[in-house]
Amino acid sequence: MLRTHTCGQLDRNNIGEEVTLCGWVASRRDHGKIIFIDLRDRYGKTQVVFLPSFKDAYKKAKKLKNEDVIRIKGKVNPRPKGTENPKISTGGVEVCGEELEILNSSLDLPFSIEEKIEVSEDTRLYHRYLDLRRKPLLDKFILRSHFNYKFREYLHKCGFLEIETPYLTKSTPEGARDFLVPSRLNQGKFYALPQSPQLFKQILMVAGVDKYYQIVRCFRDEDLRKDRQPEFTQLDIELSFIEEEDIYNLVEDMLKFVFKEVLGIELKTPFLRIKYEEAMKNYSTDKPDIGKGEFRFLWVYEFPLFEYNQQEQRWQALHHPFTMPSLKDIELLDKNPSLVKARSYDLVLNGVEVASGSIRIHDPQLQKKIFSLIKVDEEEAERKFGFLLRALSYGAPPHGGIAFGLDRLYAIITKSESIREVIGFPKTQKGVCMLTEAPSEVEKNQLEELGIETKEKEEK
Amino acid sequence: MLRTHTCGQLDRNNIGEEVTLCGWVASRRDHGKIIFIDLRDRYGKTQVVFLPSFKDAYKKAKKLKNEDVIRIKGKVNPRPKGTENPKISTGGVEVCGEELEILNSSLDLPFSIEEKIEVSEDTRLYHRYLDLRRKPLLDKFILRSHFNYKFREYLHKCGFLEIETPYLTKSTPEGARDFLVPSRLNQGKFYALPQSPQLFKQILMVAGVDKYYQIVRCFRDEDLRKDRQPEFTQLDIELSFIEEEDIYNLVEDMLKFVFKEVLGIELKTPFLRIKYEEAMKNYSTDKPDIGKGEFRFLWVYEFPLFEYNQQEQRWQALHHPFTMPSLKDIELLDKNPSLVKARSYDLVLNGVEVASGSIRIHDPQLQKKIFSLIKVDEEEAERKFGFLLRALSYGAPPHGGIAFGLDRLYAIITKSESIREVIGFPKTQKGVCMLTEAPSEVEKNQLEELGIETKEKEEK
Repeated sequence: MLRTHTCGQLDRNNIGEEVTLCGWVASRRDHGKIIFIDLRDRYGKTQVVFLPSFKDAYKKAKKLKNEDVIRIKGKVNPRPKGTENPKISTGGVEVCGEELEILNSSLDLPFSIEEKIEVSEDTRLYHRYLDLRRKPLLDKFILRSHFNYKFREYLHKCGFLEIETPYLTKSTPEGARDFLVPSRLNQGKFYALPQSPQLFKQILMVAGVDKYYQIVRCFRDEDLRKDRQPEFTQLDIELSFIEEEDIYNLVEDMLKFVFKEVLGIELKTPFLRIKYEEAMKNYSTDKPDIGKGEFRFLWVYEFPLFEYNQQEQRWQALHHPFTMPSLKDIELLDKNPSLVKARSYDLVLNGVEVASGSIRIHDPQLQKKIFSLIKVDEEEAERKFGFLLRALSYGAPPHGGIAFGLDRLYAIITKSESIREVIGFPKTQKGVCMLTEAPSEVEKNQLEELGIETKEKEEK
Repeated sequence: MLRTHTCGQLDRNNIGEEVTLCGWVASRRDHGKIIFIDLRDRYGKTQVVFLPSFKDAYKKAKKLKNEDVIRIKGKVNPRPKGTENPKISTGGVEVCGEELEILNSSLDLPFSIEEKIEVSEDTRLYHRYLDLRRKPLLDKFILRSHFNYKFREYLHKCGFLEIETPYLTKSTPEGARDFLVPSRLNQGKFYALPQSPQLFKQILMVAGVDKYYQIVRCFRDEDLRKDRQPEFTQLDIELSFIEEEDIYNLVEDMLKFVFKEVLGIELKTPFLRIKYEEAMKNYSTDKPDIGKGEFRFLWVYEFPLFEYNQQEQRWQALHHPFTMPSLKDIELLDKNPSLVKARSYDLVLNGVEVASGSIRIHDPQLQKKIFSLIKVDEEEAERKFGFLLRALSYGAPPHGGIAFGLDRLYAIITKSESIREVIGFPKTQKGVCMLTEAPSEVEKNQLEELGIETKEKEEK
């Protein structure tokens, strides 16, 4: 390592040691005969003092600018009485900089690296590497990483298998639009990026995997809003031989564990439950904010199976067409679809839906019946979902699951204005990555190889 | 839960208990007055016995076929003397089936669920949900899941942050072809799926993330071979303020931990190291198989920085153009590029490259110089990599990393013929998913919305 310690590591226990630190110049105060530097890295800040007696280091320190990357060598001293900073763990010591190496210097900054700044989001996203140096933002990613890890730890210990599903898959638009990927080896045909691994996880249940999870990217080509991104991350869970109660228990126990481990917060379980109908009656929304303190989760369940699409004059699935109807309502399927309840459930946190799931259909005949009710005819059902129908015919177990929208969850937990604050490299509302300028024009020969062309814009 | 135990759980300690099991009928033996079923799930097998005295269950058991999904209720009994199966943990007991519920019946199978089968790979992939029921295959995914988790556990404990990078990003083809994704909101422009998160992880180092990792999908639109897939999974690692030695130590320590935890194997560290030049001289390959026992890792290092592309009459990066040249060779950059060594390293296991990495360039001037040497002119460098050059100008720390090809690694560890055996839903050599039939034709309006069209096939 180029360093012996990080900038957050040194304290009074290190006094007298020779150390080497690396980091960014967070601030410089030149008192003539003494130059002070706050050296910063991900872990914290350490004060470095340069004295004229260490001539070479002192001379270089004279010229340092904010955000230069440096490496210093020197001795850890106690800070003089009265200059300690009790607010930070390293506030009792300083390093006397005996050697100074400038590893990289920085251009003048477009904005300063401070907790709060008044800069447009576009500018910050354009210089995301500077934006992420701000502690409040970096802390969100540290939290995200810990949460992800603790979710995995919990599920691993419960015997869940992480199985990775394809990103290049089949287009079966249902609800949102698919992102398409032209195939070079099969010209005229397209892959689609998955809107969710829904069908793959069901297939894994048919395969006998029994307990599956994945933290997985999903894609929807929608017009963007504050809480939407074209790609988003889902904690995806599916189990076999279960009922709703098992999902409730698993999720509550998992969240209890993760909140305790990462945030030290004791969630109260079981969470409140409310039927969709009651929620609509009492709160006029299916995502009521029950308030009263932080992080109050709420189950909303027994949604209708169908909603009527006026425009297309047909019933469509409210959740998705693989959701199991309530057993007692099976007879209503033909008589009055509007009355059929679904075995589905949403998890709501502070007025936001953070997870959604259902018990799935495992009977191929019932699945076909649902397709026909939503006017997916046999030919279309076979073309789009034939592989699912076949899978269900070879011994599919009863199964169900849930998926968390992790970006949303982390945005709420970190009290962020937008999910863009908890996504490393988010896109703007026009779907643009400010940093890389994606999407961009591509070489003509790339399109030729794929056998596609862009349409001329029509004159108006 | 629909069950009280799994099929791998019961043993002599459970004798006398009333239990409920769910699973697949693995085999049925009808002895007239007694019917035996081997009930199977992911965890194992339990023998169930049906007697005529439990009339209803017995009657249903008469009709059971292999791979029907059932739920049974009954008492755990010791197996009669002489019929125990000492090979399995559940071999000392059987369950007397008092109630039997058929949860789902199976069609006749295209192939039987046995350890070894003689069926074409296409047929197995078409029915992947059946193929995955075979124990040797499922075991590979259990191992994969454990390995993934233990990699994460190790890195998490070392303070690495998992940060998720975009899948919809910018096309900068260098080496392999990009998969393109047409943008609806920005017609005529395209995203590309990442060949690796290389530039994002470097940007994260500039942001001060310090230690990053991700298990991440990467995409290359290449003609497929046995050990290639259009999408593959990488364990991606990057650190700041390091040198080669730190990567070697980290990787060796990590693999030692993971192999011990998952397989109980003690890897010998440090791994052998050999310079590229020596490897070529002694073995005529940069991926020598040093044999001598299982799982012998080998570092190959000091690769040339450039190779000459005869066709394009230019030097190109052997690793990638962000690789740091050896300090002592900087002067040779202009004089004789062929002699410049790279600060890069590959990790080879049993003759296969399983990881590859380098110390990266953190100086924008040096990065520009490398671009110009490989004939990426200033305009092109700015257009494709401007965001990287800018990032390097605002205080980039020295950094480096490594990426493991996990599919390859797991294929070797599980002694698989092809990486397709360790990928849940792999594609054939034509890039086709046999299960879903992706890629497929899409609706005309989907293309219209994207502003693209497929070219008419030329008549020949």
